[in-house]
This record gives sequence, C-alpha cells and structure tokens, in this order.
Amino acid sequence: MSQTITPPTSVVPEPDPQLLQRAAAVRRAAMALGQCSDAERRAAVEAMADALDAASAEILEANRADLAAAAAEGLAPALVARLKLDGAKLAGAITGVRQVAALADPVGRRQLHTELDQGLVLERLSVPLGVLGVIFEARPDAVMQIASLAIRSGNGALLKGGREASCSCAAIVAALQRGLEGSAVPPGALELLTSRQESLGLLRLDGLVDLIIPRGSNALVRFIQDNTRIPVLGHADGICHLVVDRAADLALALRIALDSKTQYPAACNAIETLLVHQAIAPAFLAAALPAFAAAGVELRGDAAACALGVEQVAGPGAWDTEYSDLILNVKVVEDLEAALEHIRRHGSRHTDAIATTDPASADRFLRAVDSAGVFLNCSTRFADGNRYGFGAEVGISTQTLPPRGPVGLEGLVTYRYRLRGEGHIAADYADGTRSFSHRPLPL
Amino acid sequence: MSQTITPPTSVVPEPDPQLLQRAAAVRRAAMALGQCSDAERRAAVEAMADALDAASAEILEANRADLAAAAAEGLAPALVARLKLDGAKLAGAITGVRQVAALADPVGRRQLHTELDQGLVLERLSVPLGVLGVIFEARPDAVMQIASLAIRSGNGALLKGGREASCSCAAIVAALQRGLEGSAVPPGALELLTSRQESLGLLRLDGLVDLIIPRGSNALVRFIQDNTRIPVLGHADGICHLVVDRAADLALALRIALDSKTQYPAACNAIETLLVHQAIAPAFLAAALPAFAAAGVELRGDAAACALGVEQVAGPGAWDTEYSDLILNVKVVEDLEAALEHIRRHGSRHTDAIATTDPASADRFLRAVDSAGVFLNCSTRFADGNRYGFGAEVGISTQTLPPRGPVGLEGLVTYRYRLRGEGHIAADYADGTRSFSHRPLPL
Repeated sequence: MSQTITPPTSVVPEPDPQLLQRAAAVRRAAMALGQCSDAERRAAVEAMADALDAASAEILEANRADLAAAAAEGLAPALVARLKLDGAKLAGAITGVRQVAALADPVGRRQLHTELDQGLVLERLSVPLGVLGVIFEARPDAVMQIASLAIRSGNGALLKGGREASCSCAAIVAALQRGLEGSAVPPGALELLTSRQESLGLLRLDGLVDLIIPRGSNALVRFIQDNTRIPVLGHADGICHLVVDRAADLALALRIALDSKTQYPAACNAIETLLVHQAIAPAFLAAALPAFAAAGVELRGDAAACALGVEQVAGPGAWDTEYSDLILNVKVVEDLEAALEHIRRHGSRHTDAIATTDPASADRFLRAVDSAGVFLNCSTRFADGNRYGFGAEVGISTQTLPPRGPVGLEGLVTYRYRLRGEGHIAADYADGTRSFSHRPLPL
Repeated sequence: MSQTITPPTSVVPEPDPQLLQRAAAVRRAAMALGQCSDAERRAAVEAMADALDAASAEILEANRADLAAAAAEGLAPALVARLKLDGAKLAGAITGVRQVAALADPVGRRQLHTELDQGLVLERLSVPLGVLGVIFEARPDAVMQIASLAIRSGNGALLKGGREASCSCAAIVAALQRGLEGSAVPPGALELLTSRQESLGLLRLDGLVDLIIPRGSNALVRFIQDNTRIPVLGHADGICHLVVDRAADLALALRIALDSKTQYPAACNAIETLLVHQAIAPAFLAAALPAFAAAGVELRGDAAACALGVEQVAGPGAWDTEYSDLILNVKVVEDLEAALEHIRRHGSRHTDAIATTDPASADRFLRAVDSAGVFLNCSTRFADGNRYGFGAEVGISTQTLPPRGPVGLEGLVTYRYRLRGEGHIAADYADGTRSFSHRPLPL
C-alpha cells in the first residue's frame, strides 16, 4: 500500500513561498507567546481591547466602506446584517474581548501526576496548540472574539476574513496588533490573510497550523473539511430532532418543541424534525398545529402526519435538510425504536432531545442516541458553550473524537508529557533490576 | 469557496456496496455493544481469551501455512519474525487479552457535572467511539490485542490483517467471534477484512468508522494519513533527540544516550540524533566514542563532531532519517538555543530529552520543545503507555490534538453531553425570566 500517489488535497494549490514564510513567522511568534505567563497573556488581551476602543472610529469607518461595496455588489441582506458593525455592536464585541481576558487560564494545568519509580516522575500538562487557522465569512465581530480566545490560550492565529469584510478586518487586526505591541506577546502572533489564494494555501499548512476553525456557512465548513489534513473544529450540518414519546407531557413537549424551533431558527441547534409517537400523535398535533401556525412555523409531514392535519408533504430530502428557517418536518413513528432508527439515519450527531415522562424511554434514548448532546425534557437550544457554563464558545464539533459538542477554551489547548528522572534507563526495567511503582501523586 | 471539487480521497476507490453493508452491520453490532455493562464487556473479553486458548492448535497451524507461503515468496526475515507465532508467543498474547479484560472500564465516567439552573442538570460522560478500523502489517498477535482493547472499551472493529498473515488472522478472528457467541456482545462487532480492495475501501468509510489505527511501517501510516478523512491514531516518524547540555553529568548523559539508542533500536522512541553542546563535546565524545563502538553503534557526525573523532560524515538527509537501527547522528551545537532550533526543524514532535544539571537549561528545554514527550535526565525509551502506567497502549500519536503521545484505553472513548430538564426552554434565559446558576455538582 505504499506506492506513490497523488496527495489528497491536490485540488487545493500548494501554498506559495511567501505564505509559508509568513506562517513560519507566526509560528515562531506563537512559540514565544506559549512561554508567556497567565498574567502576561491576560494583560495582552486587555491591551487588545484597549486598542480596539481607541480605534473604534477607524474600524466603523472601514466597516462603512465594506457596506458600501456590499451595497454596490448587491450582497444578500442576511450577509449585510452580519457584516454590519455599529457603535453598539463594536462596543459589545470589545466587552467580549475583556470577558475573554477574565477567563481562567486553560494552560499549565496538571492533568496527570505519577511517580513511575523513585526519582522518575511523570506529569501531563495542558499546553497551547500552537497556531490556529481561522476562516470567516462576513462577521468582523468574530475576528475580535477568536483573536482574543487565541491569545488568551497562548496560540498564534492566521486570520482570513471574508472578502466582503476586508476593510473591517484590516482595521481590526491592525488595532489588535497595536494593542499587542505594548504587551509581552509578540504582535506577529496575529496575522491577517487577505486573498482567496492565501486562504486556500492555509488549508495546506500542515505542520505550521494545528487547527482550522471555520466560521461561516455549512458549505464553507464542508469545503474546508474536504480539503485539508489539518484538524477542523466545526460542524457542517445541524440536523437536530425532538422525539415526542408516547408518554410525553403534552404541554411540556409542545413548549420545548416551539422553543427548539423558533427561539433562533438559524442556529445549528434548532430542530429540523419532530418525531411523534403514533399513540400520542392525534392529541399532540391537535394542540401543536395551531401553536406552530401562530408562531409562523410551516410544517411538512409524512403521510401519517398529513392525515392528522399537517398540510404540506415533506418532499424527498426533507429529512436530510437543515432549513435554518421557520420550517419543521413532522413524522409519526411507530415506536421509540423507529425514532432512534430515523435519528441514526438522518441525524448529524449534533443534539437530539426527547420529551417523555417514562424513565425507561428516557434511559433508552439517552443511552442509544450517539450525538454530542442528548437531552431529556428540555430545548435543544441549550447546546451552547455559554449556556453550558464554559464562559466562551470556540465552536461546536460534531466529530466523534474529543473535543465534541460545544467547545470552550479547552478546545484550544492540548497536553504534553513531562518526565523528570535522575539517570533512569529502560534497560533496568526490562531486566528486572528495577520495577515501576506507578504511584499516583497529587495533581 | 463552495464550488464543486473533486473529493480529496478520490485516489482511493469508493467502498463497494458489499463493504458498506458489512461495515453498517458492524456499526449496528457496535451500538448494541455500547449498551453492554462493564461486567458484560469484561466477561466477553475473558470469553475471547478462552476461545483463543481452545483454538490454539488451529491458530498455530494457520500460522505455519502463512510461514510456508512467506518462505516461498522470500519475505524479508524481519517480517517473517513478526509474522511467526509459536506456542509461547500465542500464550503470551492470550495472557495479554486477559490483562485487557482486567483493565478499569473507560466507559461511563462522569467528567463534568453542572447544574445549569434548578432542575436542569448537565453531565459529560465517556462513551465508546463506535467502530475502529485497524490495519495491520504482519503481526497476528496485534490482532488479538487490538480486538480485546476494542471490545473492552465498547467499540466494534473492522480488522484488516496483512496478506502475509491471512490464514493466521482468519483463524484468530474466527476464534474471537466464537468466544463472543456465548457472551452479551454480538460477535458481529468484530469483522475481518481480507482483500486489499477492502482495506482501501475502509479508508473511505467516513460516518461508519470513527478512528483508524494503523499498525505497521511508517510508509503504511503515512499512506493512510494521506488518504482518509477519518482520524488516524498513530505516527509516521519517530525522530527523537537527546541534548547533552553544557552542564550535563557526563556519566549520566552517556548512560541515557546508550539506553535511548540501543535498548531497542527499532522502536519509535529510540533516539536518532545526539545534540552535544560545544563546551562539553570534547570530553563527552572522548568517553562516548569507545562506549558506542563497544555497543555496536555506528556514529555519523557533522564537521565539528568528525573533528572530535566521529569517523563517518552525516550525509544529506541524515537529520531527517529514522534509522530504526544501531546508527546515531551526532551534531555539535553552539548552545541550547541551537539545539532547540534543530529539534524544531528536524524533530517529529514525538519524544525529546535533555541531560543537564542546570535548572535553567532544564526549564527552558521542558517549556520550549513542542513534542508529545519532553524528558529530563532519563531515557527516551520510557515514552510508552505501559511504562507510563496506562495498563495498555493503543498507539502513540504525534498529532498536536489530544490524544497525544502514548495512548491507553482512554484513546478509544469519547464523551457525550447529557442534559436533563423539566420543560426548560432557552427563551426564558434570553428574556431574563430565568438565569443560569452554573453550579458545579460532585462528579
């Protein structure tokens, strides 16, 4: 199996020498940043916030230039809304940067401490990842957030904003670097990439970039996942389900169904499909149809749901569609097992919930559904780093391996084993001269 | 960036429908296995060991058939040695399976427990990954080890042995499945793939396989890493360094240098390069040259090392070569920073060590070297899951993200968030009706 083959990512061009050089410079700066103390990194993030404050007028002006270009190009209104910064939104983002400064340090935590033998002591310590590659669509506020999370956790970052936000991003990153100038953190730890060629090249910077964080559409995330060997923190789809079990409390089920769909329909943790047990479907839908209609939600049903009053038919592909809108599929299932099978087939392993008063159904659901979040009698909208109490959210991952689900600052660190000895050699343990104690020491 | 493009792994053929079906069957079996209790999984692994015991004669006979074919084909002696099972080696492997049965359960551990609000409680629980794809070269004993680790941790496995071990693997997997038949674990959780086509198809089973574990040559690992989107647990290179600092204890430095190179030269955690501070190089090499010669180690030096008596010149590429043999590069460095820079350029972020009595040098080295293992005054050969006290080693990862370094059973589990409420909805927290407590609860 070791014949020479075309590398998998050959569809993406090799990074040019200039990009390699810039990335190597960020990596060197990140190594210096990684040696900074908690207090130094905290102060650096505070300095970034101060610099953003000082540059507010300049940033808002740059944003107006982006908005003018967007208007001239007829950018979609949803994108324009994300692109737009005003004084309040900018001030909110700067407050967010200060909140990141105040977060507990994720670096230098001892996760394991073992005496392997007398005088031979092993530790596992959390350390920064190195360099993050962050690719945004629109959303200049996200640049401030991610840059501050990166510096707080000791990581450098290559930041690639969307073309539509190029003036805003340039002004923001210039301010952030000015802020770092007076701090212990080298300003070169943050670098802005501007061209599409550079953002494609970023995907090929294995060995220089440790984690890619995409912030944008599902299509952007999928493209990135398909075109890089670097680990990607994110998720393409968020097809979440709510199961209304035979033994559900009707009012409770309807309450969480409405919240899960309507509280913020564009969110990845909003539900796309209701799976209703056939025994409760007539009663549930009798109450649910008017409630969803009142909330402006368009329902699309399978045959059984349509027979119970859902007006539109769920077309082919409906069960695999993330609407990100006030549209909801409704399927009547024979039993809980059929609901589980539907989730296995159509879910994206993001977050799935059940409404039930039956402990056996609850237990079966919570054990059998293989999603990052499995919820009982509450809204799927709670699947969020801030709501989970992480203080910040770097992203939500639907991959199997950790970090999984909503990821806080801990997603930006890894660990390293440190072993200190006094001349210990392995041969002594192989021939029985010495033996391991493997004695746990206090963390 | 969302145009349609060729998928990255198009060089590897799409898995055929039959393989997809078999993999889906393993996944279903793995989901059932994932619901088994600790005691059931432990008993299942014991039953696997019993079945191997009962099938010993049959397995050894199958292995003799493989050896005869290998002899006819003129297989390299090193591969034949790995391929060969005898009664003692098989008995040792079966004892290994029983040891895996006895390991502490990695599943169902509560890693986080938080009250988000009254009646709304979040848990993070360790759960099996799902299905492992394991690709071996030769080494039928590794099949027994990995299969038992998979079942112990609640994971199904698609096992692909090397062609040269096909009879041995078939006999082993048949025995393992017979063992599972009397247990709570469905025998279909283990499945043997036999053709090269199937092992290429395995690399494309995203969504059905959660982790690929390659057990073989660096070339095999690199091929797999380059041709799959599924996470790979492993490492291609193991280029490890020992720095002999200006302030090293000469006898101690020589002792750990010899052990790091010679205790098992083919291991990935053996050193390939010595970096010797110029101030200590004359004294160190005066003692080291005869010691390495006596140990049968061939030294290859840079100009300065050759001037101090190293006879062979390190040719181009020497610093990037994993010899896996009794060959060692020697470079004289100006200072510690030059050694760190050499490791940054040529290391594979596996394990690097320093011999020094100077606390400042030790601290600088342990903080600045970005490898999975950073060691002080001890042999690099300690970088091993068993020596670290993990009870078993699934593999050693040189990737940045966790799991990193030697990985025990914990590398075969992930986690899931479980949230239980009483009708809680997100809207109540958005509008201030309720607020989060984020109160830590006992684990």
